[in-house]
Parts: sequence; structure tokens; C-alpha cells
Amino acid sequence: MQPIIETVFLRQMASGDRLSLQVYKFIGAKPGKKVYIQSNLHGAEIAGNAVIQQLIDFLLTINDTNLCGEIWLVPVCNPMGVNERSHHFSPGRYCVYEAKDWNRIFWDYEKEADDLVAFTKSQLQLDREVVRLNYLTTIREKFAKILEKINSPSGLPYTEQFAYKLQSMCIDADYLIDLHSSTNQAIDYLYYFRNRQESAKYFLLDYGILLDTYDGDAFDEAFIKPWLALEACFQKLGRNIQFDIEAWTMELGSGMQMHPDSVAKGILGIKNYLFQKGVLQIPEFPQANTSNQQMTFSASSKIMKYYAIAGGMIQSRVKVGSKVNANDRLYQILSFNKESQLPQTIDIFAENDGLVYEISTNQAVNQGELVLRIIQ
Amino acid sequence: MQPIIETVFLRQMASGDRLSLQVYKFIGAKPGKKVYIQSNLHGAEIAGNAVIQQLIDFLLTINDTNLCGEIWLVPVCNPMGVNERSHHFSPGRYCVYEAKDWNRIFWDYEKEADDLVAFTKSQLQLDREVVRLNYLTTIREKFAKILEKINSPSGLPYTEQFAYKLQSMCIDADYLIDLHSSTNQAIDYLYYFRNRQESAKYFLLDYGILLDTYDGDAFDEAFIKPWLALEACFQKLGRNIQFDIEAWTMELGSGMQMHPDSVAKGILGIKNYLFQKGVLQIPEFPQANTSNQQMTFSASSKIMKYYAIAGGMIQSRVKVGSKVNANDRLYQILSFNKESQLPQTIDIFAENDGLVYEISTNQAVNQGELVLRIIQ
Amino acid sequence: MQPIIETVFLRQMASGDRLSLQVYKFIGAKPGKKVYIQSNLHGAEIAGNAVIQQLIDFLLTINDTNLCGEIWLVPVCNPMGVNERSHHFSPGRYCVYEAKDWNRIFWDYEKEADDLVAFTKSQLQLDREVVRLNYLTTIREKFAKILEKINSPSGLPYTEQFAYKLQSMCIDADYLIDLHSSTNQAIDYLYYFRNRQESAKYFLLDYGILLDTYDGDAFDEAFIKPWLALEACFQKLGRNIQFDIEAWTMELGSGMQMHPDSVAKGILGIKNYLFQKGVLQIPEFPQANTSNQQMTFSASSKIMKYYAIAGGMIQSRVKVGSKVNANDRLYQILSFNKESQLPQTIDIFAENDGLVYEISTNQAVNQGELVLRIIQ
Amino acid sequence: MQPIIETVFLRQMASGDRLSLQVYKFIGAKPGKKVYIQSNLHGAEIAGNAVIQQLIDFLLTINDTNLCGEIWLVPVCNPMGVNERSHHFSPGRYCVYEAKDWNRIFWDYEKEADDLVAFTKSQLQLDREVVRLNYLTTIREKFAKILEKINSPSGLPYTEQFAYKLQSMCIDADYLIDLHSSTNQAIDYLYYFRNRQESAKYFLLDYGILLDTYDGDAFDEAFIKPWLALEACFQKLGRNIQFDIEAWTMELGSGMQMHPDSVAKGILGIKNYLFQKGVLQIPEFPQANTSNQQMTFSASSKIMKYYAIAGGMIQSRVKVGSKVNANDRLYQILSFNKESQLPQTIDIFAENDGLVYEISTNQAVNQGELVLRIIQ
Repeated sequence: MQPIIETVFLRQMASGDRLSLQVYKFIGAKPGKKVYIQSNLHGAEIAGNAVIQQLIDFLLTINDTNLCGEIWLVPVCNPMGVNERSHHFSPGRYCVYEAKDWNRIFWDYEKEADDLVAFTKSQLQLDREVVRLNYLTTIREKFAKILEKINSPSGLPYTEQFAYKLQSMCIDADYLIDLHSSTNQAIDYLYYFRNRQESAKYFLLDYGILLDTYDGDAFDEAFIKPWLALEACFQKLGRNIQFDIEAWTMELGSGMQMHPDSVAKGILGIKNYLFQKGVLQIPEFPQANTSNQQMTFSASSKIMKYYAIAGGMIQSRVKVGSKVNANDRLYQILSFNKESQLPQTIDIFAENDGLVYEISTNQAVNQGELVLRIIQ
Repeated sequence: MQPIIETVFLRQMASGDRLSLQVYKFIGAKPGKKVYIQSNLHGAEIAGNAVIQQLIDFLLTINDTNLCGEIWLVPVCNPMGVNERSHHFSPGRYCVYEAKDWNRIFWDYEKEADDLVAFTKSQLQLDREVVRLNYLTTIREKFAKILEKINSPSGLPYTEQFAYKLQSMCIDADYLIDLHSSTNQAIDYLYYFRNRQESAKYFLLDYGILLDTYDGDAFDEAFIKPWLALEACFQKLGRNIQFDIEAWTMELGSGMQMHPDSVAKGILGIKNYLFQKGVLQIPEFPQANTSNQQMTFSASSKIMKYYAIAGGMIQSRVKVGSKVNANDRLYQILSFNKESQLPQTIDIFAENDGLVYEISTNQAVNQGELVLRIIQ
Repeated sequence: MQPIIETVFLRQMASGDRLSLQVYKFIGAKPGKKVYIQSNLHGAEIAGNAVIQQLIDFLLTINDTNLCGEIWLVPVCNPMGVNERSHHFSPGRYCVYEAKDWNRIFWDYEKEADDLVAFTKSQLQLDREVVRLNYLTTIREKFAKILEKINSPSGLPYTEQFAYKLQSMCIDADYLIDLHSSTNQAIDYLYYFRNRQESAKYFLLDYGILLDTYDGDAFDEAFIKPWLALEACFQKLGRNIQFDIEAWTMELGSGMQMHPDSVAKGILGIKNYLFQKGVLQIPEFPQANTSNQQMTFSASSKIMKYYAIAGGMIQSRVKVGSKVNANDRLYQILSFNKESQLPQTIDIFAENDGLVYEISTNQAVNQGELVLRIIQ
Repeated sequence: MQPIIETVFLRQMASGDRLSLQVYKFIGAKPGKKVYIQSNLHGAEIAGNAVIQQLIDFLLTINDTNLCGEIWLVPVCNPMGVNERSHHFSPGRYCVYEAKDWNRIFWDYEKEADDLVAFTKSQLQLDREVVRLNYLTTIREKFAKILEKINSPSGLPYTEQFAYKLQSMCIDADYLIDLHSSTNQAIDYLYYFRNRQESAKYFLLDYGILLDTYDGDAFDEAFIKPWLALEACFQKLGRNIQFDIEAWTMELGSGMQMHPDSVAKGILGIKNYLFQKGVLQIPEFPQANTSNQQMTFSASSKIMKYYAIAGGMIQSRVKVGSKVNANDRLYQILSFNKESQLPQTIDIFAENDGLVYEISTNQAVNQGELVLRIIQ
């Protein structure tokens, strides 16, 4: 099947050049869920682009009768971040003008839903699907105010315009997948939200991290938090309800790389997820047996970040993916000085047991820079 | 009188070089209030350095009997920001490693004071000065936890270490003055907090903006918000109390400049404030008559920011300091294109009346970049 | 008259977005000289964009019979530089990937013309116009090799591709004008080349600087140096010849600004130049009397740059445009330290007489940064 | 034996903080050659710091009778470059203020030696060591002018001050070793100069590249080129002379890394070189048999750089260290677009046979960015 390909204007630069987004829409023969997948929101996190390209290649080979619902794909979704360079590196994690993390800028309806209890009360007796549509209408009405502001003389800063453009494509999605990787060097894993652990296994990855603490305004959070809030509100009011709305961030390996293993895991997991969810309906599809899928789950509240306690060079560090015990040596700092002393080697030991799931690519550190992350 | 000059270690860099802070402490013969003044927290905002230097020069000429209490001065308080360059410019508003605004990183006790109501109840019958000391002790105990974390193997990111160093010098101050300027081009004005309007006049500036909305974790906010919260809590419990604790941010003109007029206003205002507050006790001091001082007050909630609605070049813009009416033309965008069209000129009109108190230095704009700010 | 407007592909970014150049070609009814004018090669130097827009507006009002030859206009000629930001500033003087000055990257045929003497000998008896065409053919044949390299699998770095695109539009021009300004703050002046002093006056500016020393590979240099070399070679061989080929760099005021005065001087000077050169043929054109035009000429070899001899803040600096005498005080450095000393004020005196024609916008300096420039 | 450790003031920053160099001087009991070794001139090239630290550790274990001459060690020799960050990366290859490559700034006496023929003629009959001392005196006299300029009111830009500081420590050295690595990912290899191929083998590396083409003003070049020029001048005048003066740049693996293998090769090679040169005189030293040492030599003129011919993502690239033949596929570009087309995959083939000795770390490329380097 062939996609509809739409090019969406994003930003006019000072030079008059224009940046755009491009969305590949595969529309199935039967109506169904809307899946939204994007990649490269952070400039250095490119692995997802290969995943999307392979997904396009795959979808081109199936018939529209094999697709129930629709799949929207947005590779290289952040031109400002993707194209930025500092020397030969890709530092595009942040908007350099506003110093905002490109993944902490999104509009979260939950923060504006002052009347959530009233809304929920009004929906208590209604069918889940009706509630979903009513809530979605409410979200969209509020969301439309942003466009009014964008079109006013005072406008909005670019990060808010950009967030609007991306969110306008997915605000009515059912399943949202944001393809990231580490800026540094990391294992492959999945971020998921509460009560979505069963679906998490469909991605066939070894590790999953529950987002139980929030930085705020990330793409996946902004999408699902209003629905989690609504579910919680129903629960308080005595009705158990869970919407079939899911948001995922896949972390596929290391920054500035499209490591073939990580890409392969990404494409395998997504295809299986779409199959399990009934979006892909292909009789001969090689079904992964996720009942036996071993996945280790933890939570973002159990992440420990290690920052360099002195300036210097990192050596003898444990490998990414290692399991460590409290008091194991994690790394050494080779610390120079300008006080006529010999260089010094400082050993750093683990405070707790855990999995070293990310290490810095850069082995030079100023005091207070990140060396590694451990999850308990 | 001579100051005590202390050099405080701040950060060891990867190269082994070290950055430091230097504090000039003028200690009066009589005990009294502690005043803390710093400058250049944002790298481009240098005007306050000249103010502090002139204040040092002035204090060197008086006797310690003319000083009641003590004045701590910390110029160039952010070496990472002050020394940063991008081409010939000073972009040091943000930590480039963490992409955090150097003035949105500070530790705010209010956010951790879970038991404020209990504390307030326990202090309801006590003398104001006793309450102040008890509360300060509480704050300091919590603050001390940060040092424990800094000294642990996992450490803390540099922004938190830096915030700790600055706040450890002023957490027990009575009056705190943070000397800023615009990154862009702006008038001279003062940010103040609720119930401190009378003291605001002592600074002899034409404009004051009440901080009734917060970005969060700014230096002045982090200092005073716990006290404002305590005052509010007392009020709810039926006791009217106001602590003689004040925080100010002076905005002294334009970025990358030490404009003599702005510097002169800064030094004049601070000296008068210190005199009015009884910190400076000099019989022959030329007392400004602030009873007649005309100061226009507004609030941060009344700030309108205008962002470029198209990429291009800004021309025919109203001057900084202008008063405008709704529907006045504010500026034009000369907008180029790459679509084989002639360049276009777009007029932008004011949505409301107000004072144009800041304009961008850069007249080239990508879509969504700041052009000017108006306060109603 | 209406221009032909052509959009020229420049660069595909990693995101798939494309940057372009746009050239406005005003073609006169009569054949004649080709004039090429561009602006904003350095990202912060935007004043020329307004000049080009006003020139377009002007040319739209005349008839093609008033134009002899053709005028090509390329505003915002360097999208990579124009659109770059560091915080709110425009640091786009350099390619950040290759760390090359965008105006030191151009292809200079003189460096490759190994057989210039042989060529000149072969042309000794020919008519000047025939020589011009023969030499231009020789230059173009060599220039065409760059395109072959661009189209090879190994390609070329972007700076060389970009240089090729700009130079391919102007390599056959007769008159070339590159519109710059200071990154910092400067007077309006003109760079010119040897034996073109008379034409320089047509620009009606107060100051002209002869480029008698070269940084190498600047846009104006790369255009005219092969012709200057040919003239010199003819002279050595005993024939005096001067081609009516001219290159100019107009410096129009300060960076990140389109100061109306500088823009007005730019447009006035260019129009008068085009009129004097016979490109504009308008009977009622208000002819400037350049016979009385007072223009002060100097040479780039007489430029003295003052670098900060200590880190600190610049104050009490002489104004841009001042004339100074040797031993006059030029500026002060307010120098802080981290060695428990009071701040220090250091006076800097002029080594020679001269005109202060540029001063740094940034009044904060690390040791060795530029403070001002004087031309003797 | 213990070194003398000297701390050398380098630069005062705007904040008043100071950067320094630190040199570890191991002085042997017997006079002899002076060896100068530095590391980390480019900010991301940190591997040499571990080499120097291990060399210090080694030298601490020997006696001063085992050292003939002296060894000066300067790790982290460029604080501005070492400490620079852009997001988590180390882009410190360039001075961001002047946009100069930190290794293309050095003072090269050859460029100023206008009277080299006259000098050589005056030395034709003298002993080699006398010539060396006379020439060194001449170089030093010229070099001293830089200090005069640094101390003048107009000063010098920082890059020239920095170059002066490093060169003042090594201008009289006999052997100079500059420890680099790739910014990207590369094999371990050695840059050497003409007529020094035999000594090159002492470093026990697999590959050596003769610097037969120059970028200009690199640290190793600036040191040795005056001596090569003198040798060439003697040769022209009929006397064969070679000074025992050598300059080397070791390239130790990949950027932002201290890969243990690369560090081990570095320390092994340097120790063997010092032993072979008679600087280390240790009876029991495990002598490498370099007569059998297989080292492949090539020349910098045989380097081919491949730049991305389109923007996109690099995949299926040959591994670093591979040998390729002409027409082998080198890599693919996964190229996205904003013109409503499917993504495209472009194959790039080798133009020549050769060794892929460097590949870009970043697999995202804007058009014209470096993908890999091959040496024939």
C-alpha cells in the first residue's frame, strides 16, 4: 500500500528559508486505531529514523486490508534540532535561543483542566467510548486557543509553535510512540506509564521504566497525562475505567548512532506491538510469544545519576549494561590540578545496587557533569 | 573602612583549573542587618559590576561607625556565564551543558516546607524576631542536606552546586539585591515582591514591576518566597506579621553594556536604600526625598511579549521607553522568501496600551523570536 | 520594471529541509555592465538587506530603458549564517562545523594561475575587451572543475559548495558590491582595491580603506585579485592596462542592526555609483557632485587592533568615530580577581594617532579579546 | 625520581578567574636531549592525558641516573578547549571567539626567516652543533618580539598569547611529541616529517603519515619547519646536514575517549622512542625489536576526504580500519525530503583503493559534512 505524504510548514527563518515536517499516512481499508510514531525529537537521537524508514518499507509491501486503522509516521520531526552542529557534534537537545529541552515544551491539558471533577461527574454513566470522544472534544477546544494565539500580533515563541504543530497531528491518536535514544551511550529500553505494563511487553525489549516521576511537558507525558488524570478521577468517583490510549518512548541505544542492533529491536518491537494491538492484521505474521517475554521493570523514581565530584578524565568505568552492587567501584577520575601537585586518581563507588543503563560518551568532565546513570 | 575579602572555591574544571567566587565583606562597628548584593549572574548583564565597584570605592571612604550591620558584595558572581563567548557575544544566560537559565536554578525552601501550617501554629504567640530565627534555623537545616548530597559519591549537577554556593552566602541575609540588566535593550527598573512597595521607592527608579507571577527558582524568589509563604500562613491563622526581609532585582539597562546612566542610577538607588534602611548611618548623607518620588508600578502578570510572526528583519520599531496605544504600529518585518516572490513588509500593531520597556538588540528574527516587551 | 526572480538550491540539511538563495535580476533594455550586489554574508551584518530591499523598490519604479546592463541582487545570501543563534545573538560569522569565516572561503583564481605570464604574453597585442573575454574564459574553465568535484562521490565540504554557488552568479560581473557591517559598532566606510580610488568616491562615504594587505579568500578579493594580477603582469611586460572591473565592500554601521542612517548612506552611495558608471541612465537623477566629495583614504596595513591586556569590564572608552592622539587614554579595564584583592582599574593609552573606527559591542572581555580598532 | 612542577599563568578571564598550564619537568642526572610532550590541545582529544599520567607514574619509579637529558610533560595543555562544552559534547577544537583551530595558530619562524640563505652561507663551515645553537639563537631573538607585543598597550589576541606560552616551553626542545586523537573515530597512527622515517618506527605503531602537505601553523609543523628549511638550504648550498630535531603527532584513537588500547600503544611507543633515542637509559628495559617492526607509511597528500553529497543519515558504512578497493560501496545515505516523496537511499562508492582510517562519530549529516577519510 502507498501512504499519503503531507508536507507541513513549520517555520520561516530570518533568511526566508522554510522548515517543514513531513508525515507519511498509511490508511487502512478498515477503520480502527490511529497510531502516531515520530523520531529524532532530540537532535542527536537518530536511530528512530532508520526504524521509521524500515517501517515505511514494510508497510509498502502489505495491502491496505492488512491495516486496521491508520499509522502516521513523522521522521526527523525536529529540523532545528536535527540540523544543529557544534563542531562535528549534534548538540540539538535544546532550543539554543530559548534554552529549552525540545522534549519539555509540550502542552499538557491536565495542567489546565480545572474542572476535571465536574467533567468526570457529568460522564459517570456514559459509555467509555462516548466519554473518550467527549473528553477529546474538550481537549481540542482548549488546544485550539493556542492557534488563536499563534495567529495574534504578539504571536508565540517558536517552541510553543513547534509543540503545537507536532501535537496537532497526534492529539486524537490512540497509540503514540516517540523514538529516542540516549545522547550518550545506553542500553535499549522503554518508558511506559501506569497501568500499561501488559502492552509494554509487546515491544519485546529487556527493560522497561515506569514514568512515576515527571520532568514535565515531555511529548509522551503531555499526550497521556490528561487521560491518566481522567482515569484517576473516575476511580476516585468510584468507577473503574481505562482508556485504550497508550504513549511510549522507546530508547534505542546511543546518540549520533543508528546502531543496527538497536534499529532491529525497534522495528521488531513496533511491528509486534501493532500486530498485538490489531492494527496490523496479517495472517502469516510471525507472532512473538510475549507470554514468555522476560522484561525487567523498574521506575524513573529509582534512577540514580552520578555526577563527577571533581574535574578530570574518566577511566576504568564499568561497562554500560553492567549490574553493580553497592560499594563496587564505578569509575575513576584522573584529576589534574594547577597547584604544582601530581595528578590524582579518585575512585568512585556505588551507593546502591543497580543496573548501569547509561554512561557518558565524553570521558572528560568538569565538576558536576554526568558520568553514568544507575537504575535500582 | 576596609573589607574582609574571601575567595570561595566554586568548581574544578576538566583541565584542573579552578573557578572561584570572591566576596567583599564590609562589617560595621554596630551589629545590624545583613545586606547581600551580587552582580552578573547572567553572563551579558555586566552593568552591576561597575555598581559594585563604585560601592566598594564608596565604602572604603567611610568609617565602620557609619555602617550598622554588614554588606556583602559579590561581583562577577557567575564565572561560567561571565566568561562564555559565542563569537564576540556573551550568550552566558544559560548553562550550556544542562540548558538551564542560571537564574532559574535556586533552591526554594517553600517547595519543601510541607509542614508550614504546623510550624506557623507553633510560633503563633512568639515574638517576630524569635519566629524569624526559628524559621531561619528550619530553613538552614533543610539547606544543609544539599551539602551532604554534594559530598556523596553520586554528587550533584553543577547548577545545584553553584546555587548552593551563592545561597550559602545569603540565606541569612535581611536584604538581598541582585543586579541584572536586559540581555537586550531596556529601561532601568526594579522587580519587587508583595508588600514591599514602600521600600521599592527608596531605589529612586521610575518603574517597578511586582513579581506576582513566577518563572520559578529565580535568585530573588528563592530567597524571599519562603518568608512570603510564612507571612501568608500567619495571616490565614489570624496574625498579621511582616518580616523585615526584602529581595530586589535591579534591571540596569542593556546587555553587554555598562551604560554610565544606568550605573549611576544603580549606585544612587542602592546608597539611598541602605541609608533609608539605617544600614548606612552618615549624618551628612544627601537624603533623597522619596516622599515625592514618582514611581510607576505594574506587575509581571501584565507583561506582553511580542514574538516575530514571520522570519525576517525588524525595522521601523518604536523606541524603547515609548508609550503606545492599542493598534499603534509597533514594528515592521522585512520578510524575504525563497519562492521567487518580492520581499514583503509586514506591519505589526499593538494589542493593548502600554510601555515598551524592552526591545531585542538583534533586528534579525527567525519566526517566533522575541521582538519587544510591553507592560500594561 | 520587474525583475526575473530565480531561486537557487543551496543545501540539503540532515532533516531533508533545503536552503536556497534567491536572486533578483533586473535586466536593462540596453546591454551593458553586469552589477552583482549581495548582503548578509556574515550572519550579524544585516544592514545591507534593507539596502537591497530599497534598491528593489527603486528599480521597480524605473523603466528598463533607464537601465543599461543588468543588476543582480542577492539579499540574505548566507542562510546558515543569517539564521544561526546563540541565545538571542547572531554569531553567524563562522561556519560552526568547519570553523571557517564565511568571508574567507572563496576560490581565488590568482592562486591557481600558474601560467599567468605566458597568458599575458599571448595577449599583449590584443584589444582590452578581447583580453577580458579570453581571461574570463580561462577563469571559467578552471572554475568548472569545482562543479566536477562537487558532483563526485567524495564531494566537497559545504563551505566550498557555498562559495561555488555565490561565485557562479558573479564570476562574470563587472562590478561587485558586498554589503557588510561591523559585528561590533563601527562607522560607515568602504573597502576598495588599488587603482579604484576614483570610483570609490562615487559611494559618497567619508572613509575608504585600501585593501593593501589581505586575510585571503574574501569575497571581494577572490573576485578582483585575478584581474589585479593580470594588470600587474601586463605592466611588468610593458603595457598599461586597467580593466573596468571593480569590487567593493561597503561597511554599513553596527552588527545586528539596520540603522536608518547607515542604510540611507548605503542606498544613496550605490545609486550614485550606478549612475556615475552609466548603469542607471535617468535624466532627472539627482546627481551628487563627487568632484567636491571629501573622502579620507587610508589602508588596511594601517589598522591597529587593541586587545584587552587583562580580563575584566571595559569602561570610559572613547566613542566610535573619535580621533585620538598617541598617549591619549583609550579605555579602562575594571579588572576583578580571585586572589582576595580589591578590583583594579587599568588605563590603556593609544600607541599612535588615528581614528577609532570600530569598538566592541561587548564591554566584558577575557584577556586577549578585541576592544577597539584604530586606523592611522 | 621526582619532577619539578611549575604552574604557568595563562589567561585572566573576564570574571577575574585565571587559567594556567602546569609542566612536569623530569631532569636527568646527565645532560642530554630535551623532550617536550603535551596532550589535549584539541578539546575532545583526551587520550594523551592518560598517556602522560602513566608516563609520570613510570618516571616516578626510575632514578635520575636512568634519564639522560630532560622530559617536560604538559597534560591538558589547552584549558579553553578542554573545558568547553556544547550540551554533553566537547567541541573544543576551535577558539570560539576567533574561530581558529587551536592547532593552526602557532608561530612559524620559517615564514619570517627572510635571510635564511645568508644565514646558511655564514654557517657553511661550522660544526652541526654550533649551527644548531646559532640558529636557535636567531629563532629566539625573533620569538622574543612576540612578548614585547603581548606587553604593549595594544596587546595580542588570545590565540597568539596562548601559542607563545606553549612555544616558549618547547622552542629549544630536541624532540617534541604532541598527543592527539581523532575528534571522530580513527585508528592509531603517527604523523611524521621528511627524513625522520627511521625514528618513526620507534613508536611501534602500524601506520605513519608523512606530512608532505601542510595546513599551516600546526604545533608540530611550527616547531620543525624552520629546521627542515635550514636543512634544505644547506643542501642547496651543497652540504648535507640533518639536525637531531624531531616532531611527532601521535593520533591515539577516537575523540572524547581514552580507549585503553590506544593509551597502551601511546605509552609503549613513547617509552621505546625515549629508550632508542638514549633519553631513557635503563639496562633492564624491555627493548622492542623495531628492525622487524612493520609500519605502513603513506603521506598526507594521499588523503581523500568523503563529504556527504546529500543531507541525511549514514548507514551501512565500512568499518574504520577497513581496506577498500575502488568502486566498493563505502556507505549509504538515508535521505529524507520535504517534497512529499518517500525517503531515498543513496549508495556512495570509493573513488580509489585505500585504508579507511577515520569515520565520523555522528551518523547524521548535513550536505557537505565529513563522512570518512581514506588514505591511499
